[in-house]
Amino acid sequence: MADRPQPARATRPAVLGRNQYGKAETRVVKVTRDGGTHHVRDLSVSVALSGDMDEVHYSGTNTHVLPTDTTKNTVYAFARRHGIESPEAFAVHLARHFTDTQEPIHRARIRVEEYAWDRQDTVPGHSFVRRGRETRVAQVTWDGERFEVMGGLKDLVVMNTTASEFWGYAKDAYTTLQEDYDRILATEVSARWRHSWTGAAGERPPAWDDSYEQTVGHLLTAFADTYSLSLQQSLYAMGARVVEHRPEIEEIRFSLPNKHHFRVDLEPFGLKNDAADGAVYFAADRPYGLIEATVLRDGADARIPDDMTNL
Amino acid sequence: MADRPQPARATRPAVLGRNQYGKAETRVVKVTRDGGTHHVRDLSVSVALSGDMDEVHYSGTNTHVLPTDTTKNTVYAFARRHGIESPEAFAVHLARHFTDTQEPIHRARIRVEEYAWDRQDTVPGHSFVRRGRETRVAQVTWDGERFEVMGGLKDLVVMNTTASEFWGYAKDAYTTLQEDYDRILATEVSARWRHSWTGAAGERPPAWDDSYEQTVGHLLTAFADTYSLSLQQSLYAMGARVVEHRPEIEEIRFSLPNKHHFRVDLEPFGLKNDAADGAVYFAADRPYGLIEATVLRDGADARIPDDMTNL
Amino acid sequence: MADRPQPARATRPAVLGRNQYGKAETRVVKVTRDGGTHHVRDLSVSVALSGDMDEVHYSGTNTHVLPTDTTKNTVYAFARRHGIESPEAFAVHLARHFTDTQEPIHRARIRVEEYAWDRQDTVPGHSFVRRGRETRVAQVTWDGERFEVMGGLKDLVVMNTTASEFWGYAKDAYTTLQEDYDRILATEVSARWRHSWTGAAGERPPAWDDSYEQTVGHLLTAFADTYSLSLQQSLYAMGARVVEHRPEIEEIRFSLPNKHHFRVDLEPFGLKNDAADGAVYFAADRPYGLIEATVLRDGADARIPDDMTNL
Amino acid sequence: MADRPQPARATRPAVLGRNQYGKAETRVVKVTRDGGTHHVRDLSVSVALSGDMDEVHYSGTNTHVLPTDTTKNTVYAFARRHGIESPEAFAVHLARHFTDTQEPIHRARIRVEEYAWDRQDTVPGHSFVRRGRETRVAQVTWDGERFEVMGGLKDLVVMNTTASEFWGYAKDAYTTLQEDYDRILATEVSARWRHSWTGAAGERPPAWDDSYEQTVGHLLTAFADTYSLSLQQSLYAMGARVVEHRPEIEEIRFSLPNKHHFRVDLEPFGLKNDAADGAVYFAADRPYGLIEATVLRDGADARIPDDMTNL
Repeated sequence: MADRPQPARATRPAVLGRNQYGKAETRVVKVTRDGGTHHVRDLSVSVALSGDMDEVHYSGTNTHVLPTDTTKNTVYAFARRHGIESPEAFAVHLARHFTDTQEPIHRARIRVEEYAWDRQDTVPGHSFVRRGRETRVAQVTWDGERFEVMGGLKDLVVMNTTASEFWGYAKDAYTTLQEDYDRILATEVSARWRHSWTGAAGERPPAWDDSYEQTVGHLLTAFADTYSLSLQQSLYAMGARVVEHRPEIEEIRFSLPNKHHFRVDLEPFGLKNDAADGAVYFAADRPYGLIEATVLRDGADARIPDDMTNL
Repeated sequence: MADRPQPARATRPAVLGRNQYGKAETRVVKVTRDGGTHHVRDLSVSVALSGDMDEVHYSGTNTHVLPTDTTKNTVYAFARRHGIESPEAFAVHLARHFTDTQEPIHRARIRVEEYAWDRQDTVPGHSFVRRGRETRVAQVTWDGERFEVMGGLKDLVVMNTTASEFWGYAKDAYTTLQEDYDRILATEVSARWRHSWTGAAGERPPAWDDSYEQTVGHLLTAFADTYSLSLQQSLYAMGARVVEHRPEIEEIRFSLPNKHHFRVDLEPFGLKNDAADGAVYFAADRPYGLIEATVLRDGADARIPDDMTNL
Repeated sequence: MADRPQPARATRPAVLGRNQYGKAETRVVKVTRDGGTHHVRDLSVSVALSGDMDEVHYSGTNTHVLPTDTTKNTVYAFARRHGIESPEAFAVHLARHFTDTQEPIHRARIRVEEYAWDRQDTVPGHSFVRRGRETRVAQVTWDGERFEVMGGLKDLVVMNTTASEFWGYAKDAYTTLQEDYDRILATEVSARWRHSWTGAAGERPPAWDDSYEQTVGHLLTAFADTYSLSLQQSLYAMGARVVEHRPEIEEIRFSLPNKHHFRVDLEPFGLKNDAADGAVYFAADRPYGLIEATVLRDGADARIPDDMTNL
Repeated sequence: MADRPQPARATRPAVLGRNQYGKAETRVVKVTRDGGTHHVRDLSVSVALSGDMDEVHYSGTNTHVLPTDTTKNTVYAFARRHGIESPEAFAVHLARHFTDTQEPIHRARIRVEEYAWDRQDTVPGHSFVRRGRETRVAQVTWDGERFEVMGGLKDLVVMNTTASEFWGYAKDAYTTLQEDYDRILATEVSARWRHSWTGAAGERPPAWDDSYEQTVGHLLTAFADTYSLSLQQSLYAMGARVVEHRPEIEEIRFSLPNKHHFRVDLEPFGLKNDAADGAVYFAADRPYGLIEATVLRDGADARIPDDMTNL
């Protein structure tokens, strides 16, 4: 294919823009044995590579293309060779590898989902139950000079059964909503947070697992402790608490669907249904309010893309 | 509509068979306040009614049809009036109501899913995190004479990282599988168990919540403690343990997909990948082995339908 | 394992009931080339075998167990050896094979889903678009003596924007629904139909593909042409039309969720929203009415299990 | 709330970044009657508003917040008042409304999914079948000065059963893939394309529905007609064809998962399985190659965000 004549770049009416490729959702499970006590890391790893890739798009010439099958093999081989210390540390290894070993690859982005398992309290310790609460996510990008590391989570469903109000809002000709002074506030947290660490000389990486656990704790505490006048207020409180307590985190972005719980009108059946008295709610699916925002350390750059928390 | 002439039953080439109708997946959340400590029950309730329903099918005459919207309203009103003590107790209330109050309804079947919430350890106690592990299910059927109560669960994912083998199987011309003396055994448990309780005079119902918790514990313990030569053997061990320890349960049926974890062949890359040494596995999606069976108390009737555990 | 002492059957408190095993969701695509014109059959095949399987459950002895991996291989090999004439014909081949070649296997049940592809009208003819309308399903059971063949479909979403009413229904203390004389009727059809063919000597099998296409046509026509006073009436009309026009079909069972479309109340905004004038509807997700029934040829046996249409 | 003292902006360690809010997935169905012939538009509409929203985040003061419930009501009222001519035209109406009528709202982004229905060929014409092929999507953003309109689709699954090769790629120590000179190429197209129209005075909007239909046609034709040496090459061919034939479109971005179809190795069973002869393939789920790129009109700006095609 190499010597097939190609139209000159200047004559194309349509040109190639930003692009990347790789293997998505490689499911890797690494078991570590410590005597009879086993440890498990269970990941889905997605590799996206970019660089000097014009020719494969314009002519199908694959010279610069490391096959996605190879990136999959690399994930498995690296899990064996280096272990999986944490999603972030594993992704750092992988991202550096592809750019260091393939000249046409200038940038590698590794996305990871991690599924948590709880070891059963039995002897010996090789039996696990999948926790099933949130999904931990991470994204590491390496452009040959600096790392950008994002931690995060999705599928974390939280609910306050009181201490939430909604009133004093703008009203127009299409407003019929009644004000509410004691409502349920529930949401499914999707969040991504950016670490300040860039891999520069002398910079120590965070203890990724500990950072994750602490951050989740701050999110939960802030949600629980905020007397909420709007879901936006709870969002800001969650983000601010993380930024204030975790110096390694520069910014955090949220996508918070308002999982509406409507108090059912039971008056037609002669029943009161007051919140103060223990009410019955209809948990609605769609439509839902959707609140999205970034909270940053004062002076930090905002780099988390808008839609990233909706993936 | 009543006097629209209808063809006589005898002349129809096509006749009506078994049928039922009702409102499915009514999502009801009941909050109970105990001072500042709140309690939550979060259910999806599906009502299915049957009885003297020929006319609505043959002619669209709705005289015997209590609207599904009414069954939905009833779920909400009963949650307020009676509370939700447990999925089973709530379903017993509902099932009896429809047959007792609607003459054409001869049988009611109530299916419930319950989603568990963990209260956060804060003061005061109104903040919750959805647990996200298994989904509890229950089915109560009432035909005007006796109850049939099934408990159960789905989405419970368990894994043993050793103590599982598979060898000595039948081989034919299409067999290529290698025997394995140290494999991962993982499955997503779906189970339904039938209680002996029928609501006869003098019969005490089980403590439903405690029965559920204990049963889940037995399933997990049996899975963990069985040195497994086949997923069938683990299934039987799980069922037998439940039957032996829970006198209120007559039979239990499982649908156990074998969530295959294949040890990756890393020899092309000069790497060993032995189980004994902490291996790397590929977690496969499809296809998957599927093991289904009922375990019964000796002498009990088998009444759980085959496909019920696949719902 | 064979001589490991086993407790005698009589002493077990818990005994094995109905059981089956096999490989589920083997995804097989068969391409046939007719010069430059290609044909595609795209199936998901699930094999379930049962027979003399006590030992594998009680002791893990696998002597009678043909591995599920082998059943997967067999699916692929049979697709190459015999082609895939239709889901039903392919399943008949497979079902007979397992019982004929494995003495402990007494019964085989093959379930198939088929995904339809439309060939693009280009030259040459090897480019396809997945149709994405309904999913065709089939189930073939063979017990060594007779076949039972079920056809069916799911995911077929239909809607009449008028010619549907709902009134004259039973009312109780929990009824608030208003009668409606011009509503949308929409449902997602899941149906299974049983063929009379059993594979007895001299019996000719139906032309499966033609039977399927004709049956779908009858379902759609009956839904469209029925002026409906209840979804039950539409269900019966659909079933009766199939039974009356397709002599090869003995019974058909439906699961019809009522996909509610509620006319939005726009009066608060000074807008009328009458059906006769082209209305705006809210398409609701949950809860939903669910109508399930079997329609049989007069005198036929009802053999389709209740929950089969909910899979 | 207004006079609750707030910390001054300068003293916050954590500050608010980009944010938006609104009601997501409002499901609206509009029926239009043309005598006995009905027309249906079936949309899911998501509204996202942004502007002067600091206070609701910092203090829960809702003065600037038009409730998401109101945005839902507006969707329904506008569907009645203006009809739904096309997803894009409907979204243009909505986007302008919110910024024009709410002073604190500076920007509105409306996302739409549309589900296609085919009218059955019956008399009269009020019966429909949901097509179920691709989902049409659109996004309209209005900042008070200019519109940005994106069309698009997702869930469009296409397959070429030949005329695809993959060879000549880079190889490293982790490469085991064999070159293939006759493979299946299949993908599920997700695409977003940006229109040049901005709503400036004198600019005529495209005929949105016709533009959509023509664009889908070009995508399908380009996929079918490209003899493909890489999925990247097919992607570029699809994008280039759109840009070259549709002057109203400035850029188009794709996310193309490589839906791998692996030729099954049947040699252990004494069977050949050559592509030329009509082969049997295993349709794999995960992992999958993922190819993402933008194709632009030469000189156009690239404005479609990277992750937008993964939503």
